[in-house]
Parts: sequence; structure tokens; C-alpha cells
Amino acid sequence: MMINPLSEETEARAELSKSQSGIIDCDVHVYPRNAEEIKQYLAQPWKHRFHIRKNHYFQSPVTPRRTVTPDGRSPGTEPEFLREQLLRPHGITTAILLPRADVSANHDPDYAAAVATAYNKWLSDTWLNEYNADGAFKGSIMIAHQDPQSAAKEIERWAGHPHFVQVVIDSGARAPFGQRHYYPIYDACARHGLPLAIHPGADGIGINILASQGYPSHFLEYYAGLSFAMQVHLVSMLTEGVFERFPDLKIVITEGGVTWMPALMWRLDQEYKGLRSEVPWMKKLPSEYLRDHVRMTTQPLERPQRNEELLDVLSMMNYEEMLLFSSDYPDEHFASPDQLEFLTPRARSRILSENAKLLYHLNISSKGV
Amino acid sequence: MMINPLSEETEARAELSKSQSGIIDCDVHVYPRNAEEIKQYLAQPWKHRFHIRKNHYFQSPVTPRRTVTPDGRSPGTEPEFLREQLLRPHGITTAILLPRADVSANHDPDYAAAVATAYNKWLSDTWLNEYNADGAFKGSIMIAHQDPQSAAKEIERWAGHPHFVQVVIDSGARAPFGQRHYYPIYDACARHGLPLAIHPGADGIGINILASQGYPSHFLEYYAGLSFAMQVHLVSMLTEGVFERFPDLKIVITEGGVTWMPALMWRLDQEYKGLRSEVPWMKKLPSEYLRDHVRMTTQPLERPQRNEELLDVLSMMNYEEMLLFSSDYPDEHFASPDQLEFLTPRARSRILSENAKLLYHLNISSKGV
Repeated sequence: MMINPLSEETEARAELSKSQSGIIDCDVHVYPRNAEEIKQYLAQPWKHRFHIRKNHYFQSPVTPRRTVTPDGRSPGTEPEFLREQLLRPHGITTAILLPRADVSANHDPDYAAAVATAYNKWLSDTWLNEYNADGAFKGSIMIAHQDPQSAAKEIERWAGHPHFVQVVIDSGARAPFGQRHYYPIYDACARHGLPLAIHPGADGIGINILASQGYPSHFLEYYAGLSFAMQVHLVSMLTEGVFERFPDLKIVITEGGVTWMPALMWRLDQEYKGLRSEVPWMKKLPSEYLRDHVRMTTQPLERPQRNEELLDVLSMMNYEEMLLFSSDYPDEHFASPDQLEFLTPRARSRILSENAKLLYHLNISSKGV
Repeated sequence: MMINPLSEETEARAELSKSQSGIIDCDVHVYPRNAEEIKQYLAQPWKHRFHIRKNHYFQSPVTPRRTVTPDGRSPGTEPEFLREQLLRPHGITTAILLPRADVSANHDPDYAAAVATAYNKWLSDTWLNEYNADGAFKGSIMIAHQDPQSAAKEIERWAGHPHFVQVVIDSGARAPFGQRHYYPIYDACARHGLPLAIHPGADGIGINILASQGYPSHFLEYYAGLSFAMQVHLVSMLTEGVFERFPDLKIVITEGGVTWMPALMWRLDQEYKGLRSEVPWMKKLPSEYLRDHVRMTTQPLERPQRNEELLDVLSMMNYEEMLLFSSDYPDEHFASPDQLEFLTPRARSRILSENAKLLYHLNISSKGV
């Protein structure tokens, strides 16, 4: 049989195109246009207290510019501009939306819960309904983890909603997430098949004495260390036996980096062998729980100078199953699907689309928006 | 020329033997036999307050048994037994001693400084003098980092001593180590060519609000996360510009694990590119500072199931220069030099001996003790 280079190339392109259609972006941030959009859902005494801080928790020296709308509106506030700038050019058919708000560090658990509820109502009415004719937007249920009982009720409130597909919490907390008072949240997530996303934020701020980095001085210091809180929470959840107690619970590490995972798995597996008498509820190697229960979004993926090194490390952690593509739009850290071109078509297809479909129980066409 | 397999083997053995003679163990813990050994160096009002806690900071479920002396004395208290059990059988000619005491978490900086001074006097009189006829023991200057000015004076006090070769602090602290009030310590270390070892301990205990892991529930959780505080301190020292301000400062990460380093280098280098306007004092890539200024002891080295994976990761971080062999004697985590047999003879020779000789300015014979 003759080999036809042209048809080979065509086939490769078709494969590439196929693997890049129906992309699911698992970390897209949207915001209300102004405080009034949230306030309309808040009763007193909370309403008059609510405002939107310009910088969430930590002052980045880099202000997003590319994602400001042509008429000067804030990044992540306009659905049509988001479709035009993010979805269409990159073949993204589904965006998992993670609104960001100031709830996890607040001293008043009732205020924090009320703000979370107001954001969920706002997201449900706008991005998940009014702006969602094509069904491109899926939402994250915001909860205030200071009061896990109340947070569980908030999850129950939205669990049947067709477009809320996960729960999201900040990494900043009073205690590592394996500790027992958090279990009502995990029980609600597991019962409703809702993954729990942990997003960086509120570490060491306000009431959050779990300050994994202490009190960093610069944004570079803070951002370079985003993985530390994630690792703390995962180690705590493993050693406290959360995944045995809630076998259906899935955790999504968003914006926490990726390549630290193999070293953590090795360290955990090694110490588990000598110390498991202390944690008899752990039935498997820590790395097995991590593979089964944890997913990680790709932005910010560490990029060494040589892709071979990155591939070597990824191959040590079942990356084809564990990773979910994310752009982190509209942040300046934005990463397009093209940044995964160094992976095999099979790995790309899983990370860009299949893994998220499975995780979020999405049944979507592969057509573009 | 004929190849003689026997002579080849002899040569290889000679090379191996050469590389394993004169081994330097960079993390050996010694303790006073009883509280009186320290109290004799303490004045009132400190003397009556001093006692030795059975467990330093965190209760391990594993008590060292193999290192209890034949007549039932505590591990790490008897020099002849330590020679017999650690030095002679493993060809270790030099042990860098790191006494462990309860100074970094104490609310009273004067008490903490007095205890540190007492330990230094005790170590100087015993392990570095009375027990040191063969010169096998080198010491670490203990300081209480709560009061950096006083700590710097303590360093000055011992800097000319022939057998104190580094300064040691606990990782547990009130703030990440890049922050400015710590600089008198770095100034003293750099001026006297004394590396600063950071050893796990006192994280989140007492006054140490830098609780990198929050308040872990189990020893496994704590031990698996030992690297987090180390990473926090390194990121802080880099971004605050400590290594530009003190170009001669060397940091030794002891008992903090190893294989997390490449992922941290990648993350730092990547974010530095976008955020360096914030830290104009950083003149080089973060990974370059780490390679030049940081050394890491090998115990506990993460051990994946396949040595190839470990070698791959090590090769991403200049491991031949950065690693220093350590046994962590008399802890149950003890690792012998044999555990590095998977490395090349050249790498082993550097890690077992040459790197430490350079770092600590040791001029020692390669004969066994």
C-alpha cells in the first residue's frame, strides 16, 4: 500500500480538529457588572454592608487589560464578549463558571452565607439562564465554608438545578479540609454527585488562621505558592479518611498548579507504609485515593524549558485522567487550549473534553457555539 | 588490548569504596542525657523553668527502638554507641550534629535565647570536645529566631569555634523567613561563612502563627507535609531578595524532602517572568538562586516504585550539587548511605561527601573513624 503524505496530514488535521471540538473550559471567572446586581438578592441587614472589592484578597501588580470589553466594562462581565473572545476562537462549547466573591474570610457566617446565596441567585438568573440560550454556561454553587451546616443547605437548594454542576470553596480556611466539622459539605456534595472545587483565595485573610504561606509580602510570592494550601487540604482529607467516608466525593483543584502532585504522592505513600496504624480508616495507598478522587485544572500548568521534562513528570501521575483543561479567563494568566499541543491527541482529547464530561455528567454536542 | 572482567570489577569496587569512604552525614540528632546537663548552663530565672519534653512538638506513633542503647539509654545520647551503630558500619567519618530543643515556639524570647545558649555550651563541651577525640562531630549553632538581634549575637559568640559549622533554626515561625526582621541572622551567617539549616519543627506551635499546615490531626499528615513550610520560606527568601542582599548565604533544607524542588522551580520561574516588576531586586531566575544558595539533605528522600522516575525528577534540579547525604539518626526514619546506591558513582561521591566538604569548609581525611 502506498503512503500518501497529503492524506496522512489531512487525517492528522481531522484528528486534531476532532480533539479540539467541544472543549470544556473548567475555570472561567464571571462577575456582576456592579454591586446592585448582587444587592437586589440581599435582604437587610446584609444589603447595606455589601460592596465589591476591586482586588480579591491580594493586590496583583498585573491588571487584566486584554479582557476589558471594547466599551470599557470590566473583564468577565459581558456574556457576548466572553463568547466572542473566549469560546468561539478556541472551540470551547462549555465554560464552567466560578464567580469570585468575598465570602470565605468574613467574620460573620450569616453575612457570608447570605452573600453566597445572593451570588448563586444572580448566577442562576443571568449566566445560567438569561445569557445561556446556547447552554454554554455551567455554574458553580458558591458556599461559605465557615458554617458547614448552612453551606450544606445552600448546596441542597441548588442541587437539582440543570446548570449548576459543582460546588466551589476558597482554599483559605480556619482548618485543613479533612477536619470533621466540614463533613456536612462533603455529604451534600457526594449525595448530589456534585464535585467540590477548591479555588485559591482568602488564605490567611480575615478569620482564616490556616495561612499556609503566613503573610506573604508580594503577589509573586503568593501566586508561586498557591499549591501549598491545596496540598495541605489534600493531605488532611486523605489522612482524616474523608474519601473512605464519602466514596463518591470528587475534588477539583483549580488554579493550584499540577506538577507538584507526583512528589506529594511519593511522600504520602512512603510515610503511609510506616504510619498507617495511626489512620486505620485509610484502606488504600494515598496515591490511589488521589487518582480516584482528585482532578486538577491545567492553568497554571508549570512549563519547564523542555516539554520532555513536563511530560516525564505528568506521566508519573495518571495525568490523562486527572487533568481538566482551564483557561482562567479573564485573568492575565489566561491559557488557551493551544498550550496543550505538546500532548498526544488522545491525552488532549481527554483533558480538553472527555474528563470534564465524565466528571460533570455533561451530555453535550461537540458542535461549536 | 584484552579486557579483563576481574580487573574491571576490582576497579569498580575500588571506585565504590572510594566514593563511600569519608561519608559526611548532614543530619544527626543528639540530645542531653537528662535536663541537668542543660540546666548547669542556665541561670535563674530560666533554670527552674527548663525541662525536656518527651516529644518535640508532635506526637509520633513510632518510638525509636533500634537506637536505644544496650543499657536502655535514650537514642542519640551516647557518643560511643552512636559511633558503633552509625559511623563505623556506614563509613561515616563526619556527623553534622543538630540538637533538637524547645526554643522556637516559646513565648518568651529571653528564655528561648537562654536555652539556645545553654544547648550550645553543652554541645561545645560534650560532643564537640569531650566526646570528640577523633574529630568526627561537627555542630550546629542553635538560635531562637524570635529575637533575630539576640540570635545574631549568639552566632557571633560561636563563629570562631573550630567545630561549629552551621546555624540551625526550626521551620516553625511567626513569619516567612524572607521578611526583614530576620536579616540580622542572615548577616551574621553570611559574614562568618556559616550555612543556615532549616529543620522541621514548631510549625503552628506556641507563638508560631505561620502554621503552614494549619493544625494537623495526625503525625502522618504532619510528616507528609514537612516540605510545605520549607517551600514557603524559600519562596519568601527569593521574592524578598534575601540572596541578593546576602550573596554568601547558604540555606540547608534538612528533613524536608527533595523531589518537590523541580515543580517549585518551574512555577517560580514562570511567574517571575510576568511579575518581576514587583520584585526588581531579583536579578536572576528564581531557579538560579535556588541552585546557588540551597542545599537539601537526602533523608527523607521520596522513593517512587521505580528508581527511573526518581532519577528523572532529580535530573531536573542539579541534584548532584544540591543534595547532601543525611541519615536522620537516631530517628526511626533512619536512611543509610546504601539507599543512594541507585545513583552513579560520581553523583554518590558528591552527595555522600564532596558537597558537604565544600559547604562546611571541611578539610578532613577520607579515613574511617
